Amino acid sequence: MKKEDMNFWRDVSYEIIAEVEKSISPLVGSKKADKILKMGADGTPTKLIDEVAEEKVIQVLKNTGKPVILVSEEIGELKIGDGDAEVIFIVDPLDGTVNAVKNIPAYAISIAIAFSSELDSVSINDIKMGFVKNFAARDIYEGFKGNGAYLNGERVSTSSREKISGSFIGAYIRGPKAVQMNKLFNTVKRIRLLGSVAIELCYVADGTYDTFLDIRGNVRIVDIAAAKLIIEESGGIVTDANGKQINNKLNVKERTSIIASCNLNILKDLLRIMEAS
Amino acid sequence: MKKEDMNFWRDVSYEIIAEVEKSISPLVGSKKADKILKMGADGTPTKLIDEVAEEKVIQVLKNTGKPVILVSEEIGELKIGDGDAEVIFIVDPLDGTVNAVKNIPAYAISIAIAFSSELDSVSINDIKMGFVKNFAARDIYEGFKGNGAYLNGERVSTSSREKISGSFIGAYIRGPKAVQMNKLFNTVKRIRLLGSVAIELCYVADGTYDTFLDIRGNVRIVDIAAAKLIIEESGGIVTDANGKQINNKLNVKERTSIIASCNLNILKDLLRIMEAS
Repeated sequence: MKKEDMNFWRDVSYEIIAEVEKSISPLVGSKKADKILKMGADGTPTKLIDEVAEEKVIQVLKNTGKPVILVSEEIGELKIGDGDAEVIFIVDPLDGTVNAVKNIPAYAISIAIAFSSELDSVSINDIKMGFVKNFAARDIYEGFKGNGAYLNGERVSTSSREKISGSFIGAYIRGPKAVQMNKLFNTVKRIRLLGSVAIELCYVADGTYDTFLDIRGNVRIVDIAAAKLIIEESGGIVTDANGKQINNKLNVKERTSIIASCNLNILKDLLRIMEAS
Repeated sequence: MKKEDMNFWRDVSYEIIAEVEKSISPLVGSKKADKILKMGADGTPTKLIDEVAEEKVIQVLKNTGKPVILVSEEIGELKIGDGDAEVIFIVDPLDGTVNAVKNIPAYAISIAIAFSSELDSVSINDIKMGFVKNFAARDIYEGFKGNGAYLNGERVSTSSREKISGSFIGAYIRGPKAVQMNKLFNTVKRIRLLGSVAIELCYVADGTYDTFLDIRGNVRIVDIAAAKLIIEESGGIVTDANGKQINNKLNVKERTSIIASCNLNILKDLLRIMEAS
């Protein structure tokens, strides 16, 4: 894809972010936001604030006048415009919906872009641009395949810590491997659990966290598509719970487990704990 | 104490909050903020951002020209002004220091006030006014003994949930009772761990969390003195890990375990899980 076309879709992404932010702002912390409207295409309930956010995404993409495939949590797949799609947008209009409803300051939009006209022919590893905006913190993370990761326009890189001992991690604490997880929690220095996987993955990209893991196996590909690229472009590694490459299709129903590490040494150290019996 | 005197000390508290906020803002997210200067009176390292915040607290109190006893994490106890103290200020100038240093949006100031001239004669249950400001979210929580709890000037009350099953909790996940804690985590609907006890206790006061617990036994009384009053004035209950009243002295070295519950039913339900073998 030509540089000017890439810039065009980057600017469309910025516009989506701005429009979604405007539309959800009055709803953050409100009871109304929490109203369940229907079941989303991803199999979880669509709340009013999710729907408002997604409608803005669709509207901005329609306004481009160009053919696009949108994959988004509530609507599933949507072909916009006529002719072969120029790009595929993988969007979580609002990651951390419960936080937004409760006004806990950790909710974000995630936008990932692949340059293809066929959804079936691409995987999460074909994402070329990724954007995550942490709305409450006003931080925007961006990743460009082969061209680095950025926080508010400045290049970021992962933490240089090489041992889990003494590390700062984000983790989901329920589910499988309770014994190993307890061992992990007693090895690290600090733990956080904010409830927005997109934000917490970006915290690995910029060195806030040394690692983040959710090994329950139900992380949506849509939620991590942008952040995975952002982490990889900042020097980090994203794998499943067994340290294997994630290679899922860009589908609203696809789910995985995830370990995001600042580098290979800390990943190996973490796997050593998780694989112990 | 007369109403006008109470208003005076409330306004002093607002001024402390504003001055601390101004002084720490340029340091949030900076490497400089993280510099360790010395060991604090509470036995933990004092970072530059802690020191900057505490200096502002001392300065505002000195400027009142009135005799005050200050209990604060870094300095320990400090008598300000001449003659018998009119009030005792129990202050954590920056709760969630690590979050502030890393720009994770969950850090706060906590101010609790007792009307006494002798520190030894009062306990945490003698606090008459409490203030917590969640800086990143721009939320201010206040509690006035016998006169309710407020978020940004509006009365708040705790959640009406009566069962741990399906609840939204904040919890520290390491330490004792690993088996019971795992059972708890598998009973609730959602868990958060933000890393600021003052903020997370206020989340119980305003119904964001149904309950919050940290049973490691090392929560500082200074950190919870304001939030305990705020929760109690919003209809909640604060106990130690065994469901007993917390009655510690207002001392920088005093530590406790804590369970903060939206009501008695949920506390009983939680204790039933924690006491099971």
